[in-house]
Amino acid sequence: MVTVDLNCDLGEAYGNYSFGNDEAIIPLITSANIACGFHAGDENVLNETVKLAVKHQIKIGAHPGFPDLKGFGRRKMALSYQEIYNAIIYQLGALNGFCKLYNTKIHHVKPHGALYNMGAIDSTVAQAIAQAVYDFDSELILVGLANTLLISEAEKIGLHAASEVFADRRYENNGQLVNRRENDAVITDTDEALQQVIKMVKENKVTSRDGKDITLQADTICVHGDSAHALDFVSQIRKTLMKEGIDIQSL
Amino acid sequence: MVTVDLNCDLGEAYGNYSFGNDEAIIPLITSANIACGFHAGDENVLNETVKLAVKHQIKIGAHPGFPDLKGFGRRKMALSYQEIYNAIIYQLGALNGFCKLYNTKIHHVKPHGALYNMGAIDSTVAQAIAQAVYDFDSELILVGLANTLLISEAEKIGLHAASEVFADRRYENNGQLVNRRENDAVITDTDEALQQVIKMVKENKVTSRDGKDITLQADTICVHGDSAHALDFVSQIRKTLMKEGIDIQSL
Amino acid sequence: MVTVDLNCDLGEAYGNYSFGNDEAIIPLITSANIACGFHAGDENVLNETVKLAVKHQIKIGAHPGFPDLKGFGRRKMALSYQEIYNAIIYQLGALNGFCKLYNTKIHHVKPHGALYNMGAIDSTVAQAIAQAVYDFDSELILVGLANTLLISEAEKIGLHAASEVFADRRYENNGQLVNRRENDAVITDTDEALQQVIKMVKENKVTSRDGKDITLQADTICVHGDSAHALDFVSQIRKTLMKEGIDIQSL
Amino acid sequence: MVTVDLNCDLGEAYGNYSFGNDEAIIPLITSANIACGFHAGDENVLNETVKLAVKHQIKIGAHPGFPDLKGFGRRKMALSYQEIYNAIIYQLGALNGFCKLYNTKIHHVKPHGALYNMGAIDSTVAQAIAQAVYDFDSELILVGLANTLLISEAEKIGLHAASEVFADRRYENNGQLVNRRENDAVITDTDEALQQVIKMVKENKVTSRDGKDITLQADTICVHGDSAHALDFVSQIRKTLMKEGIDIQSL
Repeated sequence: MVTVDLNCDLGEAYGNYSFGNDEAIIPLITSANIACGFHAGDENVLNETVKLAVKHQIKIGAHPGFPDLKGFGRRKMALSYQEIYNAIIYQLGALNGFCKLYNTKIHHVKPHGALYNMGAIDSTVAQAIAQAVYDFDSELILVGLANTLLISEAEKIGLHAASEVFADRRYENNGQLVNRRENDAVITDTDEALQQVIKMVKENKVTSRDGKDITLQADTICVHGDSAHALDFVSQIRKTLMKEGIDIQSL
Repeated sequence: MVTVDLNCDLGEAYGNYSFGNDEAIIPLITSANIACGFHAGDENVLNETVKLAVKHQIKIGAHPGFPDLKGFGRRKMALSYQEIYNAIIYQLGALNGFCKLYNTKIHHVKPHGALYNMGAIDSTVAQAIAQAVYDFDSELILVGLANTLLISEAEKIGLHAASEVFADRRYENNGQLVNRRENDAVITDTDEALQQVIKMVKENKVTSRDGKDITLQADTICVHGDSAHALDFVSQIRKTLMKEGIDIQSL
Repeated sequence: MVTVDLNCDLGEAYGNYSFGNDEAIIPLITSANIACGFHAGDENVLNETVKLAVKHQIKIGAHPGFPDLKGFGRRKMALSYQEIYNAIIYQLGALNGFCKLYNTKIHHVKPHGALYNMGAIDSTVAQAIAQAVYDFDSELILVGLANTLLISEAEKIGLHAASEVFADRRYENNGQLVNRRENDAVITDTDEALQQVIKMVKENKVTSRDGKDITLQADTICVHGDSAHALDFVSQIRKTLMKEGIDIQSL
Repeated sequence: MVTVDLNCDLGEAYGNYSFGNDEAIIPLITSANIACGFHAGDENVLNETVKLAVKHQIKIGAHPGFPDLKGFGRRKMALSYQEIYNAIIYQLGALNGFCKLYNTKIHHVKPHGALYNMGAIDSTVAQAIAQAVYDFDSELILVGLANTLLISEAEKIGLHAASEVFADRRYENNGQLVNRRENDAVITDTDEALQQVIKMVKENKVTSRDGKDITLQADTICVHGDSAHALDFVSQIRKTLMKEGIDIQSL
């Protein structure tokens, strides 16, 4: 049976600042990527978020980022291999501390923001992330952008990798995402986005912006819950997947 | 046989800033309390420090503090029970991440600075620390100032507690330390300090500033390595303990 | 003519995190207290907030807090006189940097959160704040809770002080606010709150929780804009003040 | 008369962490670049450092850096034009707050670490720095690496720029520094370094690694005081400059 995972970034509040809509999105997804305190999240948010994920019985993933709260981890930083490696270990460890409280454990790791983007195209970054995840727990699944170095470097060292796809983003002929700064980067038509999802999940293919069919592994779909529109879109993805007989389940 | 542990705070460097003299002190001690990133230490320092402790086969302890790098965790902060609890879990988790790399584990926990001092006299703080340590791993040993709430609250919930004593600090009749701001708070005469150590370890007693004999459990002695003088003093404590037939070993 | 100022804390967003509703409240107030980067606000938020205040021609005040972003400056911290003094100078300087861009200057200073509360009752804290404000610019106005040490210590060194009152908080017989943890701390009836405002501004008096008339200087009223209800309440305060012939103008 | 300035980075301690040797180097230099709290320095260090510079009557410069205490501002960060601009304004403002205490003012600005290096080769970064300095105070001098964009972009908008040279670094034919990772990047022979200094200051020329004479404006020489060797080297530079009849004075 064809299956796919729905993942969302959670626990990105900080101190007095709220963020996103974790309570509303969590019933709709199968995997949570939980911020670990570097780009967002703090120890109090972490505890609440792990508790929430456990209550809803969804898989807990780490969502480690660059140490840049002011930039929400979205600004590229030139960290060395060792600095990235250690940043991953620290954040996985911190999240794992809260998992121990609820007798659960980390299931997967999805890097955040600029770390995710750099891991897709920079082999040193990809290797540092993959090796840290492997050394922390070789059973963890590393989630990365489909068709990128994060996937290939993970597999090279024997780590399970899961390819992430986007419902509402257009793809280049080489399988990469169209840059956000370009006009047609985002698919605004809901039906077109839903058709893209079905094709990616059932056929492991996507039609590029140039109309070519591209091969793409689609293990997990990235969704957001930060607006009424986003929540509605996730509901529609779920309905469409079920109608097509695709099983929505964690990695 | 009479035994005692020698513990020292390590891994308190940060980024480009060095601190202390970890390489020199580590061969002289049996337990390391490693900073976890809140008051000092960062992920890169943590990795190096855990590696060093493993290499020298000494016990690894967590040294969690308040989230106050600018004040080195020495300034009292009014955190709630839950905030303290979560801060402990986060820091234990982060250190544990690095322990996993070297197939070792956390052995004990000694709170740092203002958190240690507040835990000695404030039952809410003591309970938050003790419960967090217990929930993280009920086999951990909580190190606190002898004769204080941190010890009694730990024991109340079934956690192993270890009483820490100071070689060169004077004690009040009630078993508490003389406040640092007072003239006779510190014992400057080395022989007097060494005699105090022997009496504490062999008889579980200390002579107070008023000349009274006070009962005091002495499981572990706090030492420092941040100067040539400090290192020399630790060597003298070691020699004196061995001459008296006291075994220096971890908790 | 009787006059009163309406002040509100602004610029408390941080990085990717929004906070409050600065655009909506600013047309309703005469003084803005702008966060300076320690408890909230960052350099990007500061620039936008100063620009907004200049555009609406309201007075710009500094809103310095403890260096505790995680706790939003609401947790008491045991800083020394010198540490508080320096924290104030640093934050005033930073805000002043942005004021220079718009050819304006700081008009008043209102400490934030735990710093404000500690300054009301701890003379060392009050003196450190007042002296720093005076040394930075002796023409600045220091805003503090009416009837507290922050006001008296400011006046003692020749600094202009402005007494802040609250429309919807009850007062003790000694002129202090009823502790938030008590049931009747907040006035929930709008009419009662509006009557309290009029009495405070016109008569410099307030009826305590015990029914006694207390003397209270009312130079500025603290308002909030973080909800539709809060904005509506400010509008009602404005209408009531104008109906009573009270002029709403900055300090 | 031929003159040159000697500048050094000061005030790079943080909290409990000491750094450098400010007291020893300050009598040997004419300009201090003072860290402003982003990559190093905090409000307490700032106050002490400004006080020290005033006492020794040397020029006070700002030394703003990236918001990366963990990386000491040495790691490249992808900040936008506006983020860099605001970071400069914030840090200049903060330093200026302490200058006000001592009735002095900022005289020059030298960006730190990765910000300095990126400003040399990235026009967006150089423009953001130069515009911020100009808007803060158009009389300030911007110190940048000789022959780079930081100098040309500053001059383009009418800002005074000062070209910094290094006594012990080798230069490329294009006037840029030889990359630190290369073997001959640093001049280890003291006499050779002193000869390079004299040539740079008297002739505005330097002999490149390939033996070519390169034109190079030499307004200020960067020196360090963080070791006995470094201090000794500065003394030798001073002696050599004086013997050659070159006046050591601030920009």
